[in-house]
Amino acid sequence: MDQHNQNSVSLGELERFCHSVLIACGANEATADAVTRAMMHGTRHGVDSHGVRLLDHYVRALEGGRINKNPDLKVANAFGAIETLDAGDAHGALATYTAMDHAIALAAHFGIGAVGIRNSSHFGPAGAYSIEAARQGFIGFTFCNSDSFVRLHGGAQRFHGTNPIAVAVPSAGENPWLLDMATSAVPFNRVLLYRSTGTELPQAVASDSAGIDTRDAEAVDMLAPLGGEFGFKGAGLAGLAEILSAVVTGMRLSFDLPGMISSDMATPRGLGAFVIAIKPDAFGDQATFDAGMARYLDVLRNSPAREGQHVMAPGDREWAVAAEREKAGVRIDPATREAFAALGETYGVTLHFS
Amino acid sequence: MDQHNQNSVSLGELERFCHSVLIACGANEATADAVTRAMMHGTRHGVDSHGVRLLDHYVRALEGGRINKNPDLKVANAFGAIETLDAGDAHGALATYTAMDHAIALAAHFGIGAVGIRNSSHFGPAGAYSIEAARQGFIGFTFCNSDSFVRLHGGAQRFHGTNPIAVAVPSAGENPWLLDMATSAVPFNRVLLYRSTGTELPQAVASDSAGIDTRDAEAVDMLAPLGGEFGFKGAGLAGLAEILSAVVTGMRLSFDLPGMISSDMATPRGLGAFVIAIKPDAFGDQATFDAGMARYLDVLRNSPAREGQHVMAPGDREWAVAAEREKAGVRIDPATREAFAALGETYGVTLHFS
Repeated sequence: MDQHNQNSVSLGELERFCHSVLIACGANEATADAVTRAMMHGTRHGVDSHGVRLLDHYVRALEGGRINKNPDLKVANAFGAIETLDAGDAHGALATYTAMDHAIALAAHFGIGAVGIRNSSHFGPAGAYSIEAARQGFIGFTFCNSDSFVRLHGGAQRFHGTNPIAVAVPSAGENPWLLDMATSAVPFNRVLLYRSTGTELPQAVASDSAGIDTRDAEAVDMLAPLGGEFGFKGAGLAGLAEILSAVVTGMRLSFDLPGMISSDMATPRGLGAFVIAIKPDAFGDQATFDAGMARYLDVLRNSPAREGQHVMAPGDREWAVAAEREKAGVRIDPATREAFAALGETYGVTLHFS
Repeated sequence: MDQHNQNSVSLGELERFCHSVLIACGANEATADAVTRAMMHGTRHGVDSHGVRLLDHYVRALEGGRINKNPDLKVANAFGAIETLDAGDAHGALATYTAMDHAIALAAHFGIGAVGIRNSSHFGPAGAYSIEAARQGFIGFTFCNSDSFVRLHGGAQRFHGTNPIAVAVPSAGENPWLLDMATSAVPFNRVLLYRSTGTELPQAVASDSAGIDTRDAEAVDMLAPLGGEFGFKGAGLAGLAEILSAVVTGMRLSFDLPGMISSDMATPRGLGAFVIAIKPDAFGDQATFDAGMARYLDVLRNSPAREGQHVMAPGDREWAVAAEREKAGVRIDPATREAFAALGETYGVTLHFS
């Protein structure tokens, strides 16, 4: 491994490395599988903020006790087409894949199913779970709240998390339609990128610690909700994710959550989340649904673009990145490479760069 | 009635007038009730674009045959916790109130229920139906597509409608939490307002017929999706409303819909819509849910505001308008007043201004 001259890794090798480290740190098989799969969804599809760079953080949370290495996931409550899953401080990836599996089973039986998740933890990319439903022929919804980092519309302090909403819809013979969005105006990673490049932020997407808009990435203390002048929409969507994930499940509201980044890696954070699966052919016949999706996507992909821009269906960018990374592998950023070297040392696992 | 000197009408009088006109034009009782109730939701809460100004349009659609005065609503398909309702070209208000009633009944039994609506028509304010669920203790979702008026992110032609999403959540002893949003960057009414006042539009919220951004309200041919630089989020949310309302139900996609405003008032438009109801206490106990909502709203309403702004929960603006209009009545705009005078003449109904 000559990581100083080479910096591309194949997706398969990355997957093997992550899984081996998780097993070596003591996570059970189900946890190692789920966490690797969720991180690889992020890395494969270009959502690098929620990809393998999280491995180091997750290992520290597993080792510290914040996340249970051998959790006991239990259905705490079942009522018709819904369930409440107590994840027993499992990793959020295991909790949410499990919840989506249950929601799919409920939807297969009842046409729709929903699962509220209790005692979970950071789950990474929300789209990973919705896409699982779509791959099995169901429309999947995933919601989560997270520690406060986004102001309210008109507000001057951190209130909601970036509270993502992800929806995936099956599209026969094609990759699913996939919307995976934070409800903030910009992702925090954009701020980090602008900090490192010294670029000014777009107007009205972030504020300083007094809630005043700033274009100086260094001064950013909170993000604005999606929607600009109509930011009540982004704040409302964040509220929807918050209510489903934390109020319906009886878990912690964003402003009551201990931070993800914290010196306390021993105390479970009490995160909730919420998933829904819908069986589209329960409403009519599969052929009508498939034909409708095909026509919708065909007209969309062939519609005229604005000058210098192009039109894509939700998810198209992700599939393009995945195709490229399947072929060429993925470059690992310096901080993650360093963390991987240390993890490899600690757990006796080697990452082979290509 | 001296409508030239007076222009305020009490909500009760307005309701009576609308209902009487609808009955006089031949709509059955259920249609007249539902249409009046939906329009009055709009007018009562300050959503005037979707209030009583629609009466004249609806009467023409009922008289022309586009909307069935005596529709036969049938459950076309039932499967566990979902249904497909064939509204038989009913008015969208009757179709959607009926669908939400069914979704609530399903949710009472299964914890969640969803109803896809076929052969419906323009339903007015989406929030009217979600709030009905919340008033009965359920979380209500309402989705609809509408004729193309919003470009895609990067797109240069009308693609989605303003495709609204409305969610209402019950809040014990208080008005519900209510998010009722178009998925476009601005409502078209904002454009009309700016046209009448000659004001420049905000940046990047609307485009001319070539898809190029314009701040000239007169030149606006299409709206931008919510989200500005991140307009893929607004376009994705519009797509979600489109897929649930039109693809799942087998109804017309926005770009295939005949226009709402058209010389053909005889042909049904083939609109779909989609509603979901969730029973929050099925996931845990009612007291935990109520305490969570109370804390969420309390912290929200008491959080510090940006200078010159204030913080409100979704719906708070609407309740404030309703309280004021309950007391002082509502001013009717000149065009609507004129239409009401003609309707009163035709159907022998008098509107009393106060």
